Amino acid sequence: MPPAGELRDQSPSKNNNTQSSDTQSADAAAAAAAAISAAAADAEAAGLWTQIKAEARRDAEAEPALASYLYSTILSHSSLERSISFHLGNKLCSSTLLSTLLYDLFLNTFTSDPSLRNATVADLRAARVRDPACISFSHCLLNYKGFLAIQAHRVSHKLWTQTRKPLALALHSRISDVFAVDIHPAAKIGKGILLDHATGVVIGETAVIGNNVSILHHVTLGGTGKACGDRHPKIGDGCLIGAGATILGNVKIGAGAKVGAGSVVLIDVPRWWKREADES
Amino acid sequence: MPPAGELRDQSPSKNNNTQSSDTQSADAAAAAAAAISAAAADAEAAGLWTQIKAEARRDAEAEPALASYLYSTILSHSSLERSISFHLGNKLCSSTLLSTLLYDLFLNTFTSDPSLRNATVADLRAARVRDPACISFSHCLLNYKGFLAIQAHRVSHKLWTQTRKPLALALHSRISDVFAVDIHPAAKIGKGILLDHATGVVIGETAVIGNNVSILHHVTLGGTGKACGDRHPKIGDGCLIGAGATILGNVKIGAGAKVGAGSVVLIDVPRWWKREADES
Amino acid sequence: MPPAGELRDQSPSKNNNTQSSDTQSADAAAAAAAAISAAAADAEAAGLWTQIKAEARRDAEAEPALASYLYSTILSHSSLERSISFHLGNKLCSSTLLSTLLYDLFLNTFTSDPSLRNATVADLRAARVRDPACISFSHCLLNYKGFLAIQAHRVSHKLWTQTRKPLALALHSRISDVFAVDIHPAAKIGKGILLDHATGVVIGETAVIGNNVSILHHVTLGGTGKACGDRHPKIGDGCLIGAGATILGNVKIGAGAKVGAGSVVLIDVPRWWKREADES
Amino acid sequence: MPPAGELRDQSPSKNNNTQSSDTQSADAAAAAAAAISAAAADAEAAGLWTQIKAEARRDAEAEPALASYLYSTILSHSSLERSISFHLGNKLCSSTLLSTLLYDLFLNTFTSDPSLRNATVADLRAARVRDPACISFSHCLLNYKGFLAIQAHRVSHKLWTQTRKPLALALHSRISDVFAVDIHPAAKIGKGILLDHATGVVIGETAVIGNNVSILHHVTLGGTGKACGDRHPKIGDGCLIGAGATILGNVKIGAGAKVGAGSVVLIDVPRWWKREADES
Amino acid sequence: MPPAGELRDQSPSKNNNTQSSDTQSADAAAAAAAAISAAAADAEAAGLWTQIKAEARRDAEAEPALASYLYSTILSHSSLERSISFHLGNKLCSSTLLSTLLYDLFLNTFTSDPSLRNATVADLRAARVRDPACISFSHCLLNYKGFLAIQAHRVSHKLWTQTRKPLALALHSRISDVFAVDIHPAAKIGKGILLDHATGVVIGETAVIGNNVSILHHVTLGGTGKACGDRHPKIGDGCLIGAGATILGNVKIGAGAKVGAGSVVLIDVPRWWKREADES
Amino acid sequence: MPPAGELRDQSPSKNNNTQSSDTQSADAAAAAAAAISAAAADAEAAGLWTQIKAEARRDAEAEPALASYLYSTILSHSSLERSISFHLGNKLCSSTLLSTLLYDLFLNTFTSDPSLRNATVADLRAARVRDPACISFSHCLLNYKGFLAIQAHRVSHKLWTQTRKPLALALHSRISDVFAVDIHPAAKIGKGILLDHATGVVIGETAVIGNNVSILHHVTLGGTGKACGDRHPKIGDGCLIGAGATILGNVKIGAGAKVGAGSVVLIDVPRWWKREADES
Repeated sequence: MPPAGELRDQSPSKNNNTQSSDTQSADAAAAAAAAISAAAADAEAAGLWTQIKAEARRDAEAEPALASYLYSTILSHSSLERSISFHLGNKLCSSTLLSTLLYDLFLNTFTSDPSLRNATVADLRAARVRDPACISFSHCLLNYKGFLAIQAHRVSHKLWTQTRKPLALALHSRISDVFAVDIHPAAKIGKGILLDHATGVVIGETAVIGNNVSILHHVTLGGTGKACGDRHPKIGDGCLIGAGATILGNVKIGAGAKVGAGSVVLIDVPRWWKREADES
Repeated sequence: MPPAGELRDQSPSKNNNTQSSDTQSADAAAAAAAAISAAAADAEAAGLWTQIKAEARRDAEAEPALASYLYSTILSHSSLERSISFHLGNKLCSSTLLSTLLYDLFLNTFTSDPSLRNATVADLRAARVRDPACISFSHCLLNYKGFLAIQAHRVSHKLWTQTRKPLALALHSRISDVFAVDIHPAAKIGKGILLDHATGVVIGETAVIGNNVSILHHVTLGGTGKACGDRHPKIGDGCLIGAGATILGNVKIGAGAKVGAGSVVLIDVPRWWKREADES
Repeated sequence: MPPAGELRDQSPSKNNNTQSSDTQSADAAAAAAAAISAAAADAEAAGLWTQIKAEARRDAEAEPALASYLYSTILSHSSLERSISFHLGNKLCSSTLLSTLLYDLFLNTFTSDPSLRNATVADLRAARVRDPACISFSHCLLNYKGFLAIQAHRVSHKLWTQTRKPLALALHSRISDVFAVDIHPAAKIGKGILLDHATGVVIGETAVIGNNVSILHHVTLGGTGKACGDRHPKIGDGCLIGAGATILGNVKIGAGAKVGAGSVVLIDVPRWWKREADES
Repeated sequence: MPPAGELRDQSPSKNNNTQSSDTQSADAAAAAAAAISAAAADAEAAGLWTQIKAEARRDAEAEPALASYLYSTILSHSSLERSISFHLGNKLCSSTLLSTLLYDLFLNTFTSDPSLRNATVADLRAARVRDPACISFSHCLLNYKGFLAIQAHRVSHKLWTQTRKPLALALHSRISDVFAVDIHPAAKIGKGILLDHATGVVIGETAVIGNNVSILHHVTLGGTGKACGDRHPKIGDGCLIGAGATILGNVKIGAGAKVGAGSVVLIDVPRWWKREADES
Repeated sequence: MPPAGELRDQSPSKNNNTQSSDTQSADAAAAAAAAISAAAADAEAAGLWTQIKAEARRDAEAEPALASYLYSTILSHSSLERSISFHLGNKLCSSTLLSTLLYDLFLNTFTSDPSLRNATVADLRAARVRDPACISFSHCLLNYKGFLAIQAHRVSHKLWTQTRKPLALALHSRISDVFAVDIHPAAKIGKGILLDHATGVVIGETAVIGNNVSILHHVTLGGTGKACGDRHPKIGDGCLIGAGATILGNVKIGAGAKVGAGSVVLIDVPRWWKREADES
Repeated sequence: MPPAGELRDQSPSKNNNTQSSDTQSADAAAAAAAAISAAAADAEAAGLWTQIKAEARRDAEAEPALASYLYSTILSHSSLERSISFHLGNKLCSSTLLSTLLYDLFLNTFTSDPSLRNATVADLRAARVRDPACISFSHCLLNYKGFLAIQAHRVSHKLWTQTRKPLALALHSRISDVFAVDIHPAAKIGKGILLDHATGVVIGETAVIGNNVSILHHVTLGGTGKACGDRHPKIGDGCLIGAGATILGNVKIGAGAKVGAGSVVLIDVPRWWKREADES
């Protein structure tokens, strides 16, 4: 069976340490650790933002025709959250959903929940590390429709969990129109995600995707049409889903599994499972 | 073989009564029946429109950030035809094809041929019944690119039959750019159609699709490259075509058949045919 | 195995004469021949442009609703290069990349390198000859997203070779957003190319495509994720790649080969190779 | 004292026959006359529209760079009302008042009240006859901000009389922003009006303007700040108000009077009054 | 001599109590008073905002065609500052100064300096009280170009005092283009200002305007061309400057003075000075 | 009588050397001189352009929020002509007259006739020298509506003289809408012109304006309404026309004359004439 596609091979073990993130002890030690962790996350984001601005400044100097674009999207902003909110607001707006409204919505959501910003940072690192065609962080931030679709999805997912469903669905629709990436607002997606090329990706309402997952274009995480309720795939940490793979139903793809390009998967795929083609 | 995808199972028999709609007796009884039928269709459309406005009003009250969008697209309009014409005009316009021109074109076509409006009503009901992720009629009307692409296609098809081919093709091109749905203006499509997710659907010039058909994303109804003239698939009433299925050539997919996700189909598929995977 | 799709069969032998175009002798005879060839190319382009304008004028007269569009995109321009630059500038612009900037960029690139214009002419002829749904050159010029994506790619490729990578990648991103066609700026693509339907096509960084190749929608020329460097397919002259085919890795598809719709190809395909399904 | 400005001298007596148009006898003879008159008005409008299209066609042929503009604004439309509604919708729209909404509003108002269309016809004739710089009807229709402001005012006035005041005022605001012409929606304005150059014209809430009046730029028909209620000037038929004239308070300017450029007028001006400078 | 224009007469004595606001004692009592005053200003602004929303809600219900506009500009916002920032951002944006950038700039400036918001409140009250044509606060907020120009000027003035001169001047230019109101960013303007009609108002660099001043359209507060440095008029509290008045040079117009429409003023005008025409 | 307004006093004698520029001897010496002069003009323009870019670069560094604007309008362009063409194209475009079309028109006209560029240079110097509020050349280039209106007028005048009248008038209309400056395309205007503030300026069809003239806002150079043919004022070199002055009829304002603010002028004004108020 074929391996997946464009991406550099990734060993799931590398990522194990950071993947079980949903359990938090409530005692004081944990609180202190959380504060330290929050500060560390802030520092990491600030460092990354500094690097992104340096990249953009270098490119603006080398290419005056692009400088206006780089200043408006990156260099005029004081933080990563502001830059992304501005960029998404201008990308996803329409004549009936104004850029100023969307900008406000993105900025408020990003600044009210730091975990979104942290996930953005992890996604940027994922693209830079795993995609050999990614030449800089700013390249990913500005140009990767998969990256941008994921960031916008995180905001629509937040709105969905706040029972602001009609707004979440309107945003969902804009993402699908503009990026040809269709992620239901209810789908739960981890961090360190790479949607490479991204066109045609469809992810259903009850799908769950772990951390550090790579998904190529034309991938479907869909339903079988026979079930209601929880009816979509669960993708473990560190998986790699090849181009055009179609995974249907409430099946589990174990951590670190690779799903070959063009596969149709209807049953569980075990953790650490390696397909035959990988051996050759 | 895999079943199709996201959609709720649909029994073609349920739809049988309404599917053979193209034969009309010409005598007086038929004319009277047609008048009654037209009045009934008007009443159904009016009822649906009332419900859509009620949904939009409820959402506008709950979510002020979305109210402007809901008023401009739904609540300020006096009929379903006007709302759709406005929404499509603003979605499909470009700097060289103005929204006012498209709005005029859509409105004139919808109001001159009530059968288009009736098909729209059937499509809205199809999405609401068959797609578990569809939470309201207004959700489908505003946000489903498959629904919107089909409505715009009906207008381009009408133009094509009026030998206004260049305009039909310009519209075709805008639909393909904006929704990533590529339906040739000459293709004949029934009513009660659900294009779910819709990205990447390609439907060729001589394809024919019956009533109450569901088609998932990435589906191709194409040619084999060996034939000219009538060279594309014919899809019977009530079929379900799974995600990524590729059906090529002038083949018949019988009424009620299901075509599995990812299939490549080059020969006729019989009516009521059930694929093995369905048995399990 | 299935053949490819919508396109008319093409015999690669027909195209052989014009395919080995990359070797140029440097002596005087060659220079003279080049001058003659350049003049011939100019004449051919001028003739085609005259025909396109005649088509547009005929359509504008028959359809006043479209006349404004036809005048702004075709009839007001003095050359094919100007028309395409205008059309692409208006199609690919965004609120942060203005149409005037893009128009300038396209026009300067097209006029500084006549080989781009010659490739455009060959692409127009390819669509007209090979796609039975193409009713006129102007239809292709205005409405074929595959044609437009290829023309814009040639400009981004030129920028890439001039080490203006950030600008090339920004353009790449716009092409992917607007046309759902994702061609890395470094990919080398011949002339006489037909990207039919085009939605979802992905072509990687080190891919090379010969002359007179036809590629259907959803085709991936990707990597396997195991290699760096030269890691994408090489497609010979006159190939036909069917809808949804996924070709991965640095494999060679020999001249004139056909790759069936929905295939996953991981090894070389020989020249003149015919798949079994073609025999039936 | 100075005469008025740019305009050809007009003898009010020429216009006397058509000026007292507000009294209509209610008997049958009058009804018949009204029907004849309506038919005559329709015929006149149709004839003018034919001429405007001929002008636009001639200009489009002579100037391809302008053809797109002429087709979208004039040549693609089937009537004067549609052309003006389209043109005003595109001129007066903003990001929060969409062109499609305004187009609908203008078109509905113009088609529901033929007197507006008749006034438009009279205004076009006024510009063509009285302004030596007006070279064609289409020139006035497309380019005269005074003409366009008056047409839009008539719609806002109609809305005002229908007690749709907030919409009337929103339109008023757009006219003032776009054309720098500020006419309160309540102001009553006759037909055959020429607002020449038009920038800076201010007309207050209780002002009344007769038929066949010419008003130059920077003219104010304002209040004195001392009165409430009916507090603005009443301008008789056939008057000519020179550039920069300021007329304040509920004063009467008699039929045929000329008010000199730069005058400040606070008292009634008699009918047929001729200022001294006119004698020289 | 003529009185001023549209506005209701205002007695300057009414406003005396609130006009000497620039001296603040630094002791504790003053600090406490300031805190109380700030709280009172917040309460007043909140109350006004509540009323504006009530007006907009009433109008949206009565006029569905305007509801989208009213929701996007007023009803979707949580405060007066946000509403104005949104409205100005969308009014003043251009293809090279994006609405999102301007929105951010306005919102940051308004929220960082409460005195701007307080001045806005006073301006809204001034229009409502002094202009008989002002039917509601929301009418003024949305539609009065003079009101909007003043609010935008306050932001450009703030930028000017922060030595962000190029940005202040870019904003100045947009205000002049969009509203035809030209106020140099350095000009100092009090609160409770009414710019009625506003088209053509020009206010020079070193002009100073007190509180509760009313200025009609076409008013110039300019220089004489003979002086550098402090060369523009100083307008006292409570003045009323009539339409088209031209005041040139560093002259003082005393508190409560009225300057007649069309006057040219080159010398000081005393406080409480009443022009002869006022006696009649 | 009042002096003029905002501008620094200008001595016409300073400008005498360069003012009689319309007579050119045809002999060889003159040709040589012309070539030298052309080279000198090119050098001057290049020097000025270098300075403008330096100003813009300094401002972009100091104010990131403005950098995108400065790069798109100035810093990304290779010449003054390109920068102005881009800026005007984006300022004057509408939904029916696209920015790309206007950009092309401006660029072609500026590059085909160097005298336009030379006049632009003289206008920039005029603003910088005569207007105390002008802080840099780039400030004028970007923000002065009077400067921009004059540059666009020169293009519309060129079109007029090429008998492309409908296009000239369409441009005229856009200038009047966007800048509230109404200059008939046939009007002949010299170089070194300053239109200060500019709102409301109206210049008629047969008006002629010499070199180094300063004109304030609200100035009318109009007709008396009694004459046809040559019916507008002729303004000599070095004149200064004060704010709101209205000059009517085919009268001559002699070189160096000053016309006071608010004047109404109906007769010739002699050269070197000094108004009484100037003595005081």
